[in-house]
Amino acid sequence: MTKSRIHLFDTTLRDGQQTPGVDFSVEDKIAIAAMLDAFGIDYVEGGYPGANPTDTAFFEKKRTTRSKFVAFGMTKRVGVSASNDPGLAGLLQSASDAICFVAKSWDYHVRVALGCTEDENLDAIRASVEAAAAAGKEPMVDCEHFFDGYKANPAYALACAKAAHEAGARWVVLCDTNGGTQPSEVRAIVGAVVAAGIPGEALGIHAHDDTGQAVANSLAAVEAGVRQIQGTLNGIGERCGNANLITLIPTLMLKPAFADRFVTGITPDGLTGLARLSRSFDELLNRAPNAQAPYVGSSAFATKAGIHASALLKEPQTYEHVPPESVGNRRRVMVSDQGGKANFIAELKRRGIAVARADHRLDTLIALVKDREAQGYAYEGADASFELLARRTLDTVPMFFEVTSFRCMIERRFDANGNLKTVSEAIVKVEIDGEERMSVAEGQGPVNALDIALRKDLGKYQTEIEDMELVDFKVRILNGGTEAITRVLIESRDATGARWWTVGVSDNIIDASFQALMDSIVYKLMKNRELAGQVAAE
Amino acid sequence: MTKSRIHLFDTTLRDGQQTPGVDFSVEDKIAIAAMLDAFGIDYVEGGYPGANPTDTAFFEKKRTTRSKFVAFGMTKRVGVSASNDPGLAGLLQSASDAICFVAKSWDYHVRVALGCTEDENLDAIRASVEAAAAAGKEPMVDCEHFFDGYKANPAYALACAKAAHEAGARWVVLCDTNGGTQPSEVRAIVGAVVAAGIPGEALGIHAHDDTGQAVANSLAAVEAGVRQIQGTLNGIGERCGNANLITLIPTLMLKPAFADRFVTGITPDGLTGLARLSRSFDELLNRAPNAQAPYVGSSAFATKAGIHASALLKEPQTYEHVPPESVGNRRRVMVSDQGGKANFIAELKRRGIAVARADHRLDTLIALVKDREAQGYAYEGADASFELLARRTLDTVPMFFEVTSFRCMIERRFDANGNLKTVSEAIVKVEIDGEERMSVAEGQGPVNALDIALRKDLGKYQTEIEDMELVDFKVRILNGGTEAITRVLIESRDATGARWWTVGVSDNIIDASFQALMDSIVYKLMKNRELAGQVAAE
Repeated sequence: MTKSRIHLFDTTLRDGQQTPGVDFSVEDKIAIAAMLDAFGIDYVEGGYPGANPTDTAFFEKKRTTRSKFVAFGMTKRVGVSASNDPGLAGLLQSASDAICFVAKSWDYHVRVALGCTEDENLDAIRASVEAAAAAGKEPMVDCEHFFDGYKANPAYALACAKAAHEAGARWVVLCDTNGGTQPSEVRAIVGAVVAAGIPGEALGIHAHDDTGQAVANSLAAVEAGVRQIQGTLNGIGERCGNANLITLIPTLMLKPAFADRFVTGITPDGLTGLARLSRSFDELLNRAPNAQAPYVGSSAFATKAGIHASALLKEPQTYEHVPPESVGNRRRVMVSDQGGKANFIAELKRRGIAVARADHRLDTLIALVKDREAQGYAYEGADASFELLARRTLDTVPMFFEVTSFRCMIERRFDANGNLKTVSEAIVKVEIDGEERMSVAEGQGPVNALDIALRKDLGKYQTEIEDMELVDFKVRILNGGTEAITRVLIESRDATGARWWTVGVSDNIIDASFQALMDSIVYKLMKNRELAGQVAAE
Repeated sequence: MTKSRIHLFDTTLRDGQQTPGVDFSVEDKIAIAAMLDAFGIDYVEGGYPGANPTDTAFFEKKRTTRSKFVAFGMTKRVGVSASNDPGLAGLLQSASDAICFVAKSWDYHVRVALGCTEDENLDAIRASVEAAAAAGKEPMVDCEHFFDGYKANPAYALACAKAAHEAGARWVVLCDTNGGTQPSEVRAIVGAVVAAGIPGEALGIHAHDDTGQAVANSLAAVEAGVRQIQGTLNGIGERCGNANLITLIPTLMLKPAFADRFVTGITPDGLTGLARLSRSFDELLNRAPNAQAPYVGSSAFATKAGIHASALLKEPQTYEHVPPESVGNRRRVMVSDQGGKANFIAELKRRGIAVARADHRLDTLIALVKDREAQGYAYEGADASFELLARRTLDTVPMFFEVTSFRCMIERRFDANGNLKTVSEAIVKVEIDGEERMSVAEGQGPVNALDIALRKDLGKYQTEIEDMELVDFKVRILNGGTEAITRVLIESRDATGARWWTVGVSDNIIDASFQALMDSIVYKLMKNRELAGQVAAE
């Protein structure tokens, strides 16, 4: 049997932008579009060009290579022709491959919100679809409030969908805008739309999670015939969010109920990047990943002490619904330090550090990491700090230099022109080969000042760190209040193109930053020696 | 038509205990059982008496009044009689009303994990159910791995369910232990069980969220006949969690697809305590509530989009799938750079600020908010800063006091005992009624020191702010590098129980924190005056 193709449509940058607390910059949007493009999503909806400066700037260029780049916008206004509508013109002129029009399909909303006749709305749908096609763009239509509209007036909801389909829309997307529709209703209504003459190959589903069933509603719609699914990364979106593509994709690809009948544009190899995609997106939003997220959460394949744990280790495939590696995740058995040991040995080997299973220094390292993670360190996100800790425990890392003291000062005062200004300054004392050096620097904030002062004069090491640069700095408060424990993650890079992450934890944000900055410099010096094969000679 | 009764079974204290990071004390369990009991849950499963000291202590007394108190445990061991099994004796002697036995129903697991014959397992199920009934306890059986077992060997899985039913189990619970079963499979397999002679009135469903469909699977099972649902508060549980009762209950009670046919033990009035139940449970776990949680999340009835917001306010019932009050939640129309005039007017009205649509100061406020949000301010998360900005723009806010300068110092140095220590100190100069005051304080980090110094001596206002406390502090770096723009959000509370959020943005984290701290204090002073009806008199 030939499998049917399911088309994946991502609306993270449009509907996801409606999430309270989420505000993408143009740079964020460029980064996210690139991730989606590389992962193999068919359609990337980028926003609404013309509605705000961010989206207008984002649509000045095409931002994808493989994925179709989609602009979202309203159908033409009633009372003007398609060629005289400035909003529509903005969509047509944007650097998009496709246009997704939002059209009302609930008669009540047509009358009350649009204030036009039912026929005028149908005309606007047709004219907009035709204008997009004439401009060389793939047209599609989101039928807003379709399911609620269908329950109130099935004939008119169907007329809207048919108007879009007959005018040439590639996709007619049935939207559960308010998110309250149940899977059995989705199944029945999609069935009625197909029976009314719009083939499933032209239908899409757009579900919201207001009853916790956006994924189930999307899959019910697929079972009933639709072939396009709209959703977002990690299920962000208005109110309770949209259908979570990170959850839907592995179900479509790995569960026989779907995988036996359908195929997506993502390869099995590409699917192993799923966990990374989900976590990178959370990083970009500076949110803690959801440990219990299906497939990709750190707990998704974790088993706690109990009746399942020992049996799991014997026959994982009878306790795990899919192999964790298939989605780029891993098994975690929290009771067995045998399992823990194997993980550590594998992690160390990946870094070129060989250690025997019986080596007692390995036990010391495991205990140290557990202890530090309990304090708030997150070595999963800080490769370089983990490697430094491992090398210091299992081997030796040279004491290149020592910071004997530092001082930061932040002062808010009037400047020479009488304006209030906040100035930050840092002073660092460093000892190298018994000789003390003192550096001072100003910066934008105390951490920046400290960073500059630290790297200003490291004596004989100075030339080695000249190509080093800090590229990202993240702060997470691990518990409430200004007395909270703070975790700082710093990303650095150098001229070789290498990037590394370091971590610091303290009840003092400056101290946490200092630890991460120090680890970053020491890691760089260590890496230089390794590259030169000189570790032993140092 | 008489509605069928759905029985709600909570396993927060048993399966929820398997959640990585969750560890209930006896006191926690007592508190949670009381919440569930008061809410109207039919069955509260408390744990496994005999398996660990906490659960044994918890089962020394009956912990519920209305709900049936359920002990969980394994069926009797093969090779001993029911009366000679110490594990079973522990269950029978516990202060429970009912016993939920877990029984294997996948032939593979019977052979490999139990190491007994298929018939011996059936005998153990029968003997255990009969022993519980003889001890005056309501017996029920969780058929572990039922769906995977049914797919592998339908006859044996059915034989297990039938053995339990025929021996007198009140409920035979079909468990999707590995969580990978799809709703269409649940529907088909439950249908087959009913067809095999076990009526839906004796069947339960236990679903896990490994494909994000635990709620949908539970509801599909109800549609196929089952009348008991097992789940947990906020969906905690092993791996990705169990079916979320907080999501399931309002769907059963408010959605016509279910409410027209079924009834639960919870009253409509009781349902208005749902949001509070969900949040109290998170408080007890010391976790931040999920803003996007269906029905109860703070974003569940929030609207950001300009295109929906103005229409929403006119006809909320056509934009909200259920009324927010029905579950104890509320509508939120967010102020953001996507919002229009209607959003602003509604938000201001909620705060008791009346402003005419044509008032030019409203345009000034909107422009100011957009400008500041472009700089990185996030007013949707900072109610109090928004209100201050609005009142300053539309009205006046007294200049209670002025901070003329401040200075923070962070020093890492050796203390008297020769240990490296990082010390933070802040000095603040404040002018009140022309008089200057200077305060100094040490703190854990510069922000904490600044906070303490700022609130140390505010002269005539000091007594007013004594009950104020900072409860949360969030830092977000808005773009990469240590030179990045930093946004600080601060949550404060006072003795009245009020909580408010303020925001600050700067390239200097200390400056951003200072802004948010200042807003918090000024908001508190303003709020005090408002409460006393003195704003005009000031």
